[in-house]
Amino acid sequence: MINNRMMHGGDYNPEQWIKYPEMIEKDFEAFKKANINTITVGMFSWSMLEPEEDKFEFDWLDRIFELAQTNNINVILGTPSGARPNWLAQKYPDVLRTNEKREKMLFGGRHNHCFTSPNYRDRVTKIDSKLAERYGNHPSLVMWHISNEFSGECHCDLCQRAFRQWLKNKYETLENINEAYWSTFWSHRYTNWNQVESPSSIGEQGVHALNLDWRRFVTEQTIDFYKTEVNAIKKFSTDIPVTTNFMADTVDLWPFQALNYSKFAKEIDVISWDSYPAWHNDWSEDFEIAMKVGFINDLYRSLKKQPFLLMESTPSFVNWHDINRPKKPGFHPLSGHQYVAHGSNSVLYFQLHQSRGSSEKFHGAVVGVNGDTDTRVFNEVSDLGHSLTNYDSIIHTMNQSDVAIMYDWENDWILKDIQGFSIKNMNYIETIHNHYSYFWENDISVDVITPDESNWDYKLVIIPMLYMMDEDILQQIEKYVSQGGKVVLTYMTGIVDKNDLIHDTDFQERIENLVGSSLLEMDILYPKQRHQLLYKGQTFEVKDYCGVIENNKSEVIANYQSSYLKNKAAIVKNQYGDGQVFYIAARTDKEMLHYFYKDFAEEIGLNDTVIKNSNKEVSIQRRSDDDYDYYFIMNFSEEEKDVYLNEKMKNLNSNVEKTGTITLSGYEVKVLQRHRLRGEL
Amino acid sequence: MINNRMMHGGDYNPEQWIKYPEMIEKDFEAFKKANINTITVGMFSWSMLEPEEDKFEFDWLDRIFELAQTNNINVILGTPSGARPNWLAQKYPDVLRTNEKREKMLFGGRHNHCFTSPNYRDRVTKIDSKLAERYGNHPSLVMWHISNEFSGECHCDLCQRAFRQWLKNKYETLENINEAYWSTFWSHRYTNWNQVESPSSIGEQGVHALNLDWRRFVTEQTIDFYKTEVNAIKKFSTDIPVTTNFMADTVDLWPFQALNYSKFAKEIDVISWDSYPAWHNDWSEDFEIAMKVGFINDLYRSLKKQPFLLMESTPSFVNWHDINRPKKPGFHPLSGHQYVAHGSNSVLYFQLHQSRGSSEKFHGAVVGVNGDTDTRVFNEVSDLGHSLTNYDSIIHTMNQSDVAIMYDWENDWILKDIQGFSIKNMNYIETIHNHYSYFWENDISVDVITPDESNWDYKLVIIPMLYMMDEDILQQIEKYVSQGGKVVLTYMTGIVDKNDLIHDTDFQERIENLVGSSLLEMDILYPKQRHQLLYKGQTFEVKDYCGVIENNKSEVIANYQSSYLKNKAAIVKNQYGDGQVFYIAARTDKEMLHYFYKDFAEEIGLNDTVIKNSNKEVSIQRRSDDDYDYYFIMNFSEEEKDVYLNEKMKNLNSNVEKTGTITLSGYEVKVLQRHRLRGEL
Amino acid sequence: MINNRMMHGGDYNPEQWIKYPEMIEKDFEAFKKANINTITVGMFSWSMLEPEEDKFEFDWLDRIFELAQTNNINVILGTPSGARPNWLAQKYPDVLRTNEKREKMLFGGRHNHCFTSPNYRDRVTKIDSKLAERYGNHPSLVMWHISNEFSGECHCDLCQRAFRQWLKNKYETLENINEAYWSTFWSHRYTNWNQVESPSSIGEQGVHALNLDWRRFVTEQTIDFYKTEVNAIKKFSTDIPVTTNFMADTVDLWPFQALNYSKFAKEIDVISWDSYPAWHNDWSEDFEIAMKVGFINDLYRSLKKQPFLLMESTPSFVNWHDINRPKKPGFHPLSGHQYVAHGSNSVLYFQLHQSRGSSEKFHGAVVGVNGDTDTRVFNEVSDLGHSLTNYDSIIHTMNQSDVAIMYDWENDWILKDIQGFSIKNMNYIETIHNHYSYFWENDISVDVITPDESNWDYKLVIIPMLYMMDEDILQQIEKYVSQGGKVVLTYMTGIVDKNDLIHDTDFQERIENLVGSSLLEMDILYPKQRHQLLYKGQTFEVKDYCGVIENNKSEVIANYQSSYLKNKAAIVKNQYGDGQVFYIAARTDKEMLHYFYKDFAEEIGLNDTVIKNSNKEVSIQRRSDDDYDYYFIMNFSEEEKDVYLNEKMKNLNSNVEKTGTITLSGYEVKVLQRHRLRGEL
Repeated sequence: MINNRMMHGGDYNPEQWIKYPEMIEKDFEAFKKANINTITVGMFSWSMLEPEEDKFEFDWLDRIFELAQTNNINVILGTPSGARPNWLAQKYPDVLRTNEKREKMLFGGRHNHCFTSPNYRDRVTKIDSKLAERYGNHPSLVMWHISNEFSGECHCDLCQRAFRQWLKNKYETLENINEAYWSTFWSHRYTNWNQVESPSSIGEQGVHALNLDWRRFVTEQTIDFYKTEVNAIKKFSTDIPVTTNFMADTVDLWPFQALNYSKFAKEIDVISWDSYPAWHNDWSEDFEIAMKVGFINDLYRSLKKQPFLLMESTPSFVNWHDINRPKKPGFHPLSGHQYVAHGSNSVLYFQLHQSRGSSEKFHGAVVGVNGDTDTRVFNEVSDLGHSLTNYDSIIHTMNQSDVAIMYDWENDWILKDIQGFSIKNMNYIETIHNHYSYFWENDISVDVITPDESNWDYKLVIIPMLYMMDEDILQQIEKYVSQGGKVVLTYMTGIVDKNDLIHDTDFQERIENLVGSSLLEMDILYPKQRHQLLYKGQTFEVKDYCGVIENNKSEVIANYQSSYLKNKAAIVKNQYGDGQVFYIAARTDKEMLHYFYKDFAEEIGLNDTVIKNSNKEVSIQRRSDDDYDYYFIMNFSEEEKDVYLNEKMKNLNSNVEKTGTITLSGYEVKVLQRHRLRGEL
Repeated sequence: MINNRMMHGGDYNPEQWIKYPEMIEKDFEAFKKANINTITVGMFSWSMLEPEEDKFEFDWLDRIFELAQTNNINVILGTPSGARPNWLAQKYPDVLRTNEKREKMLFGGRHNHCFTSPNYRDRVTKIDSKLAERYGNHPSLVMWHISNEFSGECHCDLCQRAFRQWLKNKYETLENINEAYWSTFWSHRYTNWNQVESPSSIGEQGVHALNLDWRRFVTEQTIDFYKTEVNAIKKFSTDIPVTTNFMADTVDLWPFQALNYSKFAKEIDVISWDSYPAWHNDWSEDFEIAMKVGFINDLYRSLKKQPFLLMESTPSFVNWHDINRPKKPGFHPLSGHQYVAHGSNSVLYFQLHQSRGSSEKFHGAVVGVNGDTDTRVFNEVSDLGHSLTNYDSIIHTMNQSDVAIMYDWENDWILKDIQGFSIKNMNYIETIHNHYSYFWENDISVDVITPDESNWDYKLVIIPMLYMMDEDILQQIEKYVSQGGKVVLTYMTGIVDKNDLIHDTDFQERIENLVGSSLLEMDILYPKQRHQLLYKGQTFEVKDYCGVIENNKSEVIANYQSSYLKNKAAIVKNQYGDGQVFYIAARTDKEMLHYFYKDFAEEIGLNDTVIKNSNKEVSIQRRSDDDYDYYFIMNFSEEEKDVYLNEKMKNLNSNVEKTGTITLSGYEVKVLQRHRLRGEL
Repeated sequence: MINNRMMHGGDYNPEQWIKYPEMIEKDFEAFKKANINTITVGMFSWSMLEPEEDKFEFDWLDRIFELAQTNNINVILGTPSGARPNWLAQKYPDVLRTNEKREKMLFGGRHNHCFTSPNYRDRVTKIDSKLAERYGNHPSLVMWHISNEFSGECHCDLCQRAFRQWLKNKYETLENINEAYWSTFWSHRYTNWNQVESPSSIGEQGVHALNLDWRRFVTEQTIDFYKTEVNAIKKFSTDIPVTTNFMADTVDLWPFQALNYSKFAKEIDVISWDSYPAWHNDWSEDFEIAMKVGFINDLYRSLKKQPFLLMESTPSFVNWHDINRPKKPGFHPLSGHQYVAHGSNSVLYFQLHQSRGSSEKFHGAVVGVNGDTDTRVFNEVSDLGHSLTNYDSIIHTMNQSDVAIMYDWENDWILKDIQGFSIKNMNYIETIHNHYSYFWENDISVDVITPDESNWDYKLVIIPMLYMMDEDILQQIEKYVSQGGKVVLTYMTGIVDKNDLIHDTDFQERIENLVGSSLLEMDILYPKQRHQLLYKGQTFEVKDYCGVIENNKSEVIANYQSSYLKNKAAIVKNQYGDGQVFYIAARTDKEMLHYFYKDFAEEIGLNDTVIKNSNKEVSIQRRSDDDYDYYFIMNFSEEEKDVYLNEKMKNLNSNVEKTGTITLSGYEVKVLQRHRLRGEL
């Protein structure tokens, strides 16, 4: 891990204030007051760095590096490809995107360049090289930040050609692609590679394998573009790690949908992400929102199994939700700690200094537009900054999990694209959240893994709704279970292969063999309809998907209670080799899953025995190295809450040692250090 | 009627399995097991029949015909124009549609060709001729199926020219079209035929007569294209009847909106349609859904007054509803029988063998993707197939109705396009359903006729909301009533002519004379507002449309009860010649209409006296020939239900004769044969 | 004010009936019966006035002028630019608009010409000149009506060039526009004027200052086009006043959003507007709708501080709402009077004679399509027409207000475009309505002023949510208050300048100085969330926006009651010079504002003492000259209501004098004349 400090700081845009040098001086004073030790610069500076083609102006940035060095501040240097200057689009129109309706976009916004355009790649290489040459070995530079929030796609002719080439490389012959796309259906057979077009609302959108390949291509073309930038940088700046900032989607913090980050992660030195939850909203409790934040933290940490960075977050509110509520007093330090608790080595913000104009001027910032620091926001940022200085020993620790839940980007894409079953209620991510929430609420650390992860060193692996499965993942499950692992599978498992072709009988039978049951059919319910199941003496409602199964060699552990499903198996348990497979055939609410996992957790010893916490609003996460456990105890409610320490631990902020009951006030977080026993796992 | 067997079978796409000949062999074994006697092939096979321009491959289809013949299976041969190959679109881009925004579509989907393109007509004629020449006299061939689910429109320059020519033929002079379109309004006068453009969201959409003519043109151009195909076929295959499959729209099974089937029906030998109701949903009871299925059956049967075919249906579920619920156990045979009960001589499915890939792979099928037949679906299909073999004597029978309800496609189009009144609550079809449902629930057979039907051999004709009326239909009503017929008219009757021009005083007065009342004005209510009316001692709510009328010579049979309408006439009855006209001035709920028709039905003797059935969930339909009545008694509930037979009848499946009370279990259907008395009407 | 009669009549389209001259004769007879003295003609007659380029036909219009003169009817002559003929668009395609997606429109609809096109300006000048030359001094002509309902925008290349020129004139240098648009953000700096493009969904929409300038340009370009027409007219018709008809938006009658009428008003001789409220709907009471009508009347009257005209309204219903309910019996005369009560010197209709065809044929009309006059609508129009003949003495009177509420078009635009806070619940107009409604319900006359109005001769000025403020308006407030005025300000005040740039510290401090408090931050609530405040012993809910303030020298008059805001100031009162500023920091419901203004009104003497009226459904408005007050007492309920006259007054319709209690029946309106005392203000 780069740097030996917990980073605190974030995006800084001094190019907006070049005419006001006293404002920049004031900013650095404010950074000192707020314990800010890291600034991210350059990301949107292209028009100031290269105001005309090949005319470069670095003086202002030299000055920022100088100020950073003087003030012992790390610099993360962004490449400016996320927002090109006006002149560039005017001179090289092919850098502008074409949308899926084949409409050529005008200049505007950002993150809108064609990833294929050779002109754009040339200009980006040029400016990146200049930056790398000049700053690539500057003592304050700690990291490169390539572009910004990669996303989107382009359907121009250049991209169509690249897509066709990508398909040729993959399928080699037209016969192969025709078979993969099952193109005999509706006479869609390709007889010429030029007949292939990217999906379009004015063309083809119903061939799921094409849609899927397009999304794969978009991910790979984006990575290819990213690598062009990395290559330009590394030529001059060989030792500095490189990142790009990942995102989450929707106010419910889904894994970012447009790119497959499990592929992208392989090319990145340090994962970083931008987190903008909608705290204090009117449809969920804060602890439920925290659970969703935790899920993404666990997913992005698990991508490389190493600590990550929180690259952006807001010190207060954002400007692009429908309702942009500020964090309540005292909430910001808590919310910042949560990232560190899950494995982040930073709390960074967008933005350090508020813009005076344009679209993001009302996004929360550490320092107000006019340099104001006598604000509640500034004070809470400073408090958190102060705490972070006490955590440098945590930097080289990691979270350790006995449980893994699988999320798969490609499976998510294809489920959202499905034609059949209940399109309206697919809810893949919501279902995963429901499984995950048991462990989060009960302080059990979880890795969120993807099918790219093959090292399953877990007591339990939960794989909900893995509709799309290939031979590799099936073998992986078979091997893991037969060697003693426990797996939870659900309805909608293993139906199609990687081209969305329905599996043949052999594959289907292997899944039925894993489950110990025949998977006969599925009742699909309308939104207002419910069936019931009975599990360990309690009745729960089921909805949406109700698999009809016939247990052959499995043990039935829950039965349906209603309609023609009455008395049929709803959940079965199957011994497979040395391990067990649990198959949940019907969709239940969260409550049933919690009831199910509770016994499970006790049975296989997942619960932490050092701290007793019976509050679902209090979350505990642990990072460890060989010598110490670091417990983050976080109270996401406004009420006072107690937890009980079975061992003596030291509070890293107060340096006080305690055992027994400790009390957290509303929104309080405590970070406790515990000596590990010799040989403790 | 072609063929002497009740057809059972459906769409079969062996071209998807050419590489797997054993799969095809297995399919034919399955067909035998399931009593399948009919397959529809060729519909989407173009790219396999003509993989390159003018290179034809018929071997695989020869083999299918051979297998059909060996297995005594009928073949319905589809022409492949519904889905052209990729190479054809690439070589002749004018076959691709232009949408109403004048955007040229890319290749993709199906049912998307320009109906005007001479290139497309040429290529279609070529392949059709080849098929007709080769298979047109094959002993297994029982019917031609032209293209598939005709629909959609094209706005390309070729279509604009054809539309202008069509208008010139219709209006002859610019003066005439200007008058018809009332184009002085907003200075829209045409001074040149080239100024005419099809309706467009980036041009003109507010000239209703233009919109209407465009839809008429689209129907006629579609029929013209269809006839091109028929001509190519008939040249080689003169004696085989021709059909194309009609559709219904929305999950509520509206008559298909995009084409006027009353025009199309004239060019078709046998009507067939594709029926996909959303059974077991969460907003209506199954018997209400069955009523809507019944309505379309009655409409499409009445178009030619002859038995029709159910060309497509699902053996289980579809893949393109929002929620795709499978039929419950036992429901499929019931649902299949309903079509036969209303006049179908077939139960055919999409699809016989499930696809492995692409957009419809999760559509229900008789045989699973891997050839599976040990499924509930397959067993229920087989059961129904077995029953159908007992109904060959029914093939030449017809349903006979004393009641007709009028539905008019053009009236529906223009009401959906109206600017004024309550655009949001026009509900033409829903209103017709409300009238129709009384008769369906009470086992009274209904013909659903269009204004093209002039042979009104009925005791009662119900004409709801016929906003658009011409001289012909007015004369037809006047003649029918004056000769003793009974007609029910409602609010929104006879306001405009065939160009959506408001009628002159003469026409208005003739309608008022029919009704015996002055039609003064109309109160239009907002959705939450209600008035009341009092009819035969009961108060009912009225909504949406409340006509204010003044009875002159009519008899008032219901009065308003509220607001400024209090005591004004709401329903009147007028003696006109030897008959009567009932005018319902306000929109009521279904309950009021049922109350109204109940007395009516008794008064004029509409009820069947042979079977007594007081369950609204049990539907009885009758098909008859000179010697026999065939009663279909269908229980659309899950509960046991009794009906009472006043005469002895024979169950066609069990061959048992019975009289008195008989009991139907949940979802059961019984088909009973009754000897007609000599001379019985 | 032109003309000495209260005008009654409206839009008349005899060009639709040229082939039916007897229909036109009949119309003029009907006009006489209905006391109609004014017709508006020519607006959509272009294709009849100039059927081919440069071929003019005026005979039919000559005849209309002749009939008008014979019947002593005023003519308002419309220029036909609102709907060009087909031939014109065919010959000069640049007259057609290009939409924001850069799609070229086809011919269709109306109000759809490019305001920049030189060809269009030429052709319009030509036809306008011809009309002015021929009719400009006709004795029946009382007013010119330029085009119709100006609206919309064009993004063609001509308009892009004009926009760039407009920006160059405004900003002079690229440096200036870059600073104004804060274009360093996201590297948007312009280095060339040709890089500027109008906002587009396929380009830039997030630069608020650009969006704002575009809307300003659209207003100015529209006015520029309008002035081209005026110039053509005035050359021949120097003394006749000119108007164009303004509109209101949405069924809730917002000020028209697409153009800044406060700019447009300066170029117009007499303001006129088209009013189409949705009476008798199912989401508000009629008196609440009347309040919204009153608001627009007050706003448009205040634009020029002179009487205005109701240019269009319906005698019954419209055809373009979702639900088009007719006015109930007796409501039309009441509704017509309301405009006069607020300052209108006319009640004019669209339309006098119903169209037979095309899109507006079901819009209410005085005379039915076939010339029908024996209708309720015609009778009620006649009644109102008769009343209006008694009001000629009112023509030169004006409404006088002690209270002003500020509405600002540009502020409305920018608030709707905001990114931040609660985008979903901005509700600027709804908030103004909530303030305004207290005064309307309590019969206190209000001027609705814009920032262009600098003559603040009021006791109280209410300025809700003036987010965008420049130096001028701030100085105006400071001056007005320091000289003794009372101002009410609210949350969201004075945040940005005219380019949507956040103000600097100086400006912020001047606002804080006015308010006597520091404006610290703002809690933004989700829709279902509420805080409470306590004001004069009563608790009220607050929502959406809750400013957190710190009173320095101000007096706290209301406190928050909940959450972390508890006990903080919610409303403060500050002495500033000789006046007071009230600052309402949180959004409340209407009820709280009414409670607040009630004491206020008594304290500063806003209530009328001549008539006592405690019914909120009864609205009283007053127009005065030096000698008389004219009281319009209007009962917007169906119930009988009493008001009490403290002085003797004369009913202008009955000529009876009364004092004490008078009773209004449902929907009744009384117009009373009162002698003013000498020297009364």
